[in-house]
Amino acid sequence: MFTKRRNSPGSPPATLSPHLVDGQVRKPAIQIIEYDGEHFEEREIHDMNELAAHLDNPFVTWINIDGLGDVEALKLLGEKFHLHPLALEDVLNTGQRPKIEIGPDYLFIVAQMVYQNREATICGEQISLFMGKNFLITVQEEGEYDVFEPVRGRIRGGRGTIRNLKEDYLTYALMDSIIDHFYPVLEEIGSKIEILEDELLERPSRTMVQTLHEYKRSLTQMRRFVWPLRDVVNSLLHESSGHITQSTQVYLRDCYDHTVQLMDLVETYKEITAGLMELYHSSVGLRTNEVMRVLTVITSIFIPLTFIVGIYGMNFAPATPDGKALPLNMPELYQPHGYIGLMAIMAVIAVVQLIVFRKMKWL
Amino acid sequence: MFTKRRNSPGSPPATLSPHLVDGQVRKPAIQIIEYDGEHFEEREIHDMNELAAHLDNPFVTWINIDGLGDVEALKLLGEKFHLHPLALEDVLNTGQRPKIEIGPDYLFIVAQMVYQNREATICGEQISLFMGKNFLITVQEEGEYDVFEPVRGRIRGGRGTIRNLKEDYLTYALMDSIIDHFYPVLEEIGSKIEILEDELLERPSRTMVQTLHEYKRSLTQMRRFVWPLRDVVNSLLHESSGHITQSTQVYLRDCYDHTVQLMDLVETYKEITAGLMELYHSSVGLRTNEVMRVLTVITSIFIPLTFIVGIYGMNFAPATPDGKALPLNMPELYQPHGYIGLMAIMAVIAVVQLIVFRKMKWL
Amino acid sequence: MFTKRRNSPGSPPATLSPHLVDGQVRKPAIQIIEYDGEHFEEREIHDMNELAAHLDNPFVTWINIDGLGDVEALKLLGEKFHLHPLALEDVLNTGQRPKIEIGPDYLFIVAQMVYQNREATICGEQISLFMGKNFLITVQEEGEYDVFEPVRGRIRGGRGTIRNLKEDYLTYALMDSIIDHFYPVLEEIGSKIEILEDELLERPSRTMVQTLHEYKRSLTQMRRFVWPLRDVVNSLLHESSGHITQSTQVYLRDCYDHTVQLMDLVETYKEITAGLMELYHSSVGLRTNEVMRVLTVITSIFIPLTFIVGIYGMNFAPATPDGKALPLNMPELYQPHGYIGLMAIMAVIAVVQLIVFRKMKWL
Amino acid sequence: MFTKRRNSPGSPPATLSPHLVDGQVRKPAIQIIEYDGEHFEEREIHDMNELAAHLDNPFVTWINIDGLGDVEALKLLGEKFHLHPLALEDVLNTGQRPKIEIGPDYLFIVAQMVYQNREATICGEQISLFMGKNFLITVQEEGEYDVFEPVRGRIRGGRGTIRNLKEDYLTYALMDSIIDHFYPVLEEIGSKIEILEDELLERPSRTMVQTLHEYKRSLTQMRRFVWPLRDVVNSLLHESSGHITQSTQVYLRDCYDHTVQLMDLVETYKEITAGLMELYHSSVGLRTNEVMRVLTVITSIFIPLTFIVGIYGMNFAPATPDGKALPLNMPELYQPHGYIGLMAIMAVIAVVQLIVFRKMKWL
Amino acid sequence: MFTKRRNSPGSPPATLSPHLVDGQVRKPAIQIIEYDGEHFEEREIHDMNELAAHLDNPFVTWINIDGLGDVEALKLLGEKFHLHPLALEDVLNTGQRPKIEIGPDYLFIVAQMVYQNREATICGEQISLFMGKNFLITVQEEGEYDVFEPVRGRIRGGRGTIRNLKEDYLTYALMDSIIDHFYPVLEEIGSKIEILEDELLERPSRTMVQTLHEYKRSLTQMRRFVWPLRDVVNSLLHESSGHITQSTQVYLRDCYDHTVQLMDLVETYKEITAGLMELYHSSVGLRTNEVMRVLTVITSIFIPLTFIVGIYGMNFAPATPDGKALPLNMPELYQPHGYIGLMAIMAVIAVVQLIVFRKMKWL
Repeated sequence: MFTKRRNSPGSPPATLSPHLVDGQVRKPAIQIIEYDGEHFEEREIHDMNELAAHLDNPFVTWINIDGLGDVEALKLLGEKFHLHPLALEDVLNTGQRPKIEIGPDYLFIVAQMVYQNREATICGEQISLFMGKNFLITVQEEGEYDVFEPVRGRIRGGRGTIRNLKEDYLTYALMDSIIDHFYPVLEEIGSKIEILEDELLERPSRTMVQTLHEYKRSLTQMRRFVWPLRDVVNSLLHESSGHITQSTQVYLRDCYDHTVQLMDLVETYKEITAGLMELYHSSVGLRTNEVMRVLTVITSIFIPLTFIVGIYGMNFAPATPDGKALPLNMPELYQPHGYIGLMAIMAVIAVVQLIVFRKMKWL
Repeated sequence: MFTKRRNSPGSPPATLSPHLVDGQVRKPAIQIIEYDGEHFEEREIHDMNELAAHLDNPFVTWINIDGLGDVEALKLLGEKFHLHPLALEDVLNTGQRPKIEIGPDYLFIVAQMVYQNREATICGEQISLFMGKNFLITVQEEGEYDVFEPVRGRIRGGRGTIRNLKEDYLTYALMDSIIDHFYPVLEEIGSKIEILEDELLERPSRTMVQTLHEYKRSLTQMRRFVWPLRDVVNSLLHESSGHITQSTQVYLRDCYDHTVQLMDLVETYKEITAGLMELYHSSVGLRTNEVMRVLTVITSIFIPLTFIVGIYGMNFAPATPDGKALPLNMPELYQPHGYIGLMAIMAVIAVVQLIVFRKMKWL
Repeated sequence: MFTKRRNSPGSPPATLSPHLVDGQVRKPAIQIIEYDGEHFEEREIHDMNELAAHLDNPFVTWINIDGLGDVEALKLLGEKFHLHPLALEDVLNTGQRPKIEIGPDYLFIVAQMVYQNREATICGEQISLFMGKNFLITVQEEGEYDVFEPVRGRIRGGRGTIRNLKEDYLTYALMDSIIDHFYPVLEEIGSKIEILEDELLERPSRTMVQTLHEYKRSLTQMRRFVWPLRDVVNSLLHESSGHITQSTQVYLRDCYDHTVQLMDLVETYKEITAGLMELYHSSVGLRTNEVMRVLTVITSIFIPLTFIVGIYGMNFAPATPDGKALPLNMPELYQPHGYIGLMAIMAVIAVVQLIVFRKMKWL
Repeated sequence: MFTKRRNSPGSPPATLSPHLVDGQVRKPAIQIIEYDGEHFEEREIHDMNELAAHLDNPFVTWINIDGLGDVEALKLLGEKFHLHPLALEDVLNTGQRPKIEIGPDYLFIVAQMVYQNREATICGEQISLFMGKNFLITVQEEGEYDVFEPVRGRIRGGRGTIRNLKEDYLTYALMDSIIDHFYPVLEEIGSKIEILEDELLERPSRTMVQTLHEYKRSLTQMRRFVWPLRDVVNSLLHESSGHITQSTQVYLRDCYDHTVQLMDLVETYKEITAGLMELYHSSVGLRTNEVMRVLTVITSIFIPLTFIVGIYGMNFAPATPDGKALPLNMPELYQPHGYIGLMAIMAVIAVVQLIVFRKMKWL
Repeated sequence: MFTKRRNSPGSPPATLSPHLVDGQVRKPAIQIIEYDGEHFEEREIHDMNELAAHLDNPFVTWINIDGLGDVEALKLLGEKFHLHPLALEDVLNTGQRPKIEIGPDYLFIVAQMVYQNREATICGEQISLFMGKNFLITVQEEGEYDVFEPVRGRIRGGRGTIRNLKEDYLTYALMDSIIDHFYPVLEEIGSKIEILEDELLERPSRTMVQTLHEYKRSLTQMRRFVWPLRDVVNSLLHESSGHITQSTQVYLRDCYDHTVQLMDLVETYKEITAGLMELYHSSVGLRTNEVMRVLTVITSIFIPLTFIVGIYGMNFAPATPDGKALPLNMPELYQPHGYIGLMAIMAVIAVVQLIVFRKMKWL
């Protein structure tokens, strides 16, 4: 997710290099949707020159390009719509920081969408939008998931106000869809963090830290995508060159609120993750302490006792080899109650130690 | 407390979806209070159409809706008061960041109140206010506790200046009540933290860290609610479109002071909580150190002694099986004072070790 | 020090509730000082109505109220000087964040003074000032220490320029005294921290961490008092409604410098305290490491030796009970130099281990 | 990389001191490139006086000086182009913070390029640019790598728009090359960090922490270079004294985007590095915990058993030396199933302990 | 270095109290330097009244006072040059935060110089400057080192432009010297930190942490001095009341660059120091882990073996005292290959354990 595509240092600006799949150029899928209140048309095209028929009509024309393999098509598109080569370079060099550039003829927006693929790993995909008079061009990386589908459904169905408004509302709807798709990913992380939180104190394990670390990374990355997104929406909101109509700005304000909430959520989760890491450290520290206490108690009780039984296992002889009695050598061994007495003494030692340890709250 | 309700990504803006209780729509309780200096009326209504009678009079009309289950009622209300559908969506999608929107006809405020329920867990509840000429609409989630009750009592009793002033003062009174209800929750946390602080050094336990972590989370969450609340009050204070009269602004300034103090308190408690976490770490670290010292001292004293008694437990024979004397094999065992002498030597070793450990300040 | 007095949530604004001592109202001590360049009068009054005689003269009248028990007196005072009820509420609800309110008739300042009581614990006390044309009213909590005494002495003695200037200079002098009284408390903390710093590495103990933690809390609290104090002085400095004369502003700038230095000092001490906490952690970690090393060295040397002597303590018999010789069972025991040889071997093992440990820098 | 060259304190401003190699002045390599759309000339010069021929023509003249040993040459250059002596001092005192100074006659830019040398250590090199009407002077430290080579190639080849534009575009191209050369270094660090991340949890070692620490240092250093670089490009972008033409500003905005992305990347890597350090700590803490658990389990099982076998190794005698039977002394030893019974008891003890430890999740 | 001199709280403003050496006032050394392009005079004076002769001439008069013991002399000086008493108080109350006050007649600057004394401890010394029309007064604390000496040398020698410019350039030259003297101290710290860095991983010791902590404190302190110094120079740079000529401002900008670089350096070193502290923690944690591993391996290998040999050291009898054979009691002891077999079994156990530990990467 962190990799930013780039041209080699020192190469001339606006150098366009295609994305290759297995070393080969793959044709992008190009889709055109044309609509106004009454009219609706949707078709796939295979050649940029087919576009010409769609340019000089009063409908909103949404051109969606899915795949970044065909540099020539992009160049053609750029010529037709007078897109700046540097903007096209940004389209191809994916992994860009979200940004907006407001030109006299069109707006250029780069955003990053986020989704979870089938293996539940979080993926990012760059989406570039060019919005001008009556047209909207979106270019996306090839990926498993398409955040624009619900919007397409709304246009097809003629639901909501979308069909009656112009390309600025469509831009809003797409941006809103991109932003809203961050929520499920964040909620997924949030619920997983909550599960981790419960397990963490019970039985800290290495995998948990690793998972936690990965979430932290994902959140770091999302923050990189969401913060500038807020600036993008804010710029759209205060845009004054006439690209955005007033009726759409009300909706953009709602969209802005969503990005602010998103940032809030990302920051909160980051804070919670950091707190969990600390909790984990505490938990491990305390467990080590407990293990040590058990070790110390057991060792402290049995080591002196083992020493004592060791004493009476010594072989000091009651007599020299030639039979002279040595009455001072371990006379205890020859007492009638020596064994029982010693056992009693050791029991007392052990009990006293247990009491002491209990007093010290080690047990 | 962290969950934000939301529509599915890509759905059209201003989609209203009701809150369901056990999968069923539950009718909200709707209450109307109408007052001016002399007049006071309070009643429950069950149908939005009953509202009509209350709209064209010079009294302040406060409509309070308790429960978010009835989307149709909300829509009707929206039509009657010309409320923006996006605002109504925010009313239903609870867990919003507090915010204010100042329109030409009305103010729209979203705030979060906080209280402790019967099980002493901290709960949040979203409260939305629409304030316009002579009316105030408040919508709250269904919950155990109602922060507006004291204000209602003041209106009923005709106490204070509340009956002589208009809906802007009522708005202030409600905001003030929402804000003031943060204090008892924070004070509760504060006093519990103080108790924790004393216990922490005495006997650190896992539950403490967990409690601490939960307080930290609650404080993080409250901060998310209080910081934007300050901005809301500040916007009200500097509002210039005539919704707020000058006499009320003096009170709003007081209210603003309260939010600043609240933030101050939240930040201070967060800092103290972080300090306690660190204290806890120190405490555990030091305890482990102490346990280790005891272990090391006991082991260091008894292990060498056990080795020594082990030596004299060896069976090196004083003579070969066929009777040849082996005078070099453990002659100590056959000394008259061998046993006593060894005991004395071991006592000296133990005492010397104790002195050394005392010098090293390990005892 | 953290407790902020407050009214119950939802109560009407400007509710005044008295401070009770053992459940009873205690009359505050009220003192009046009246002066100009020639004139000086100082007396205690017991009834607010005695004030009337002092209001219509050209002298500077300083009314100091010591104690917050008498709500009626405060209300009377409020009426005489047209003080806003919300300001009076702030006077009673102690623990306020320092602040300034500039009205057309008077300035209202809330500040917090700090001092160490006889038990060396750091105490805070709220001081409220109302400054208007020819009068200054100060209200303080009852406490052990009075920061205004040196200023009173200067007025009595006619020292400095204080007698020749008006109430704005007096306000400056009191603010300056409040601010300057932070220094001895901070210096005390500073010197205690320095002592701790030396002890910490020598012999870390639990009490030290506790002390450190308490200083940290005190510093956190002071910061809460000092930062807004700076804003208060700054507002005074740039006040443009004529309450402050130009000649006093030079002194206020000096006062402002002091608050900046104070903040600087508080932040520095906070940083040092944090550094010491870290030092403490390092120290404990290193000590644990040392203890472990000793344990490991002793265990590693003696455990193998104990094993060896254990071997030769085994009772493998040189012959079966029925007298058949078992020459392979522990023949070492019947060697003439078996014992001495074994002792030599064990000595070599121990020496080799010592050399290894020394190489590993564990000794 | 951290060392900043400086004159001795108190020396007069604009003191120029040459860089010496092995104590000797080394002549710098001076190269002139002259071009416009049609014309192109490239040559090395050895004497500053050869410059004269290149000054009064309409071509863009790019003078590149490689090496800082020749103070006299610099002074001559300074006189010819009216460069300020303080700027020349900055050229020689390498390790400067990147900055821009906009004068009436020329722009002065100091930047730092970064590259990895053959031993893969990250090197920094100061580059100074003077841009005026029709000329650009670049001065670089002598180093292994030259970031300007790709740009030179583009001029020679007449590729791109570079030949048709003036010295401001050349400045942009060089700045862009400097900035773009940060990327490969950062990507190298990034990929190495990723490798570390995998190893860290598997088998934490001292070298890893060291490596991590070095990356952190490098990133700290790069941040010091990149942050001000952004300000430099921003100043160029908003420069209004006519040095930069409008057509170049579009490219500079692209360049600005790159510095922002760079900063973003540096910050992200710093955060990841910090996260890894924490991961490392966790990993070590958990390993210690595991080691302790193994130790405790083994000790807890065998120490009591060893004590028990020690008991039955005691030599309490069944009879006094003079033959009196002592039936209470260790009668177990004379039971037919004593040995087998004891072994069974010990097996039970061990099994019970294993079950307990498994319950405590220590195994 | 942290101590700020101050008057007792509540004392009147502008109270001047002399610095005493061993309880006695010590006369300061007062030096006058008078110069313009041609003229140069340098002399010591002992009485402030000797000053009169130097005031009414067109030369730049630099009065340097070394020592803060003579309050009367300062007062006389203050009267002659109309210096504000509050400024004089700041001169005496050393340890001030650097600041600038721009009055109509003169500039007042307080700065802190830093140097290492003979014992290599870092010392701070306050320097106060008053600059007015044709005069510059500098007052410094008595100390081992004088940062002004190089500047004096340049005036004496007539080197550079210093003799031809006025008192504003002299002020610049002195400020520049103060600022430049921070560099050697920082470089010293930097090189010592680098040495520490190498040692830290090799063999962490308590003294290192202490040293590190001291550097951290010194850096904290320097930051306190450098940050406001930047503001001072910035104020000088943008000063508009005519005290600073335009020709000097070019040099001040250079001076400003130096303070920015200084701050940069201080912050970088602080960050590195924090990184080293963390490295130290890692290093200690890892060492503890290693020590534990060795302990655990040795214990785990020998404790079970010791238990086994303990078994065969038990005295279960082959026959009852009265001769009845007990064939189940430890028959192994009477096997021909019992001893050798047991030794072999123990060897296998040890080898298996070693293999397991190697697999677990503990060896």
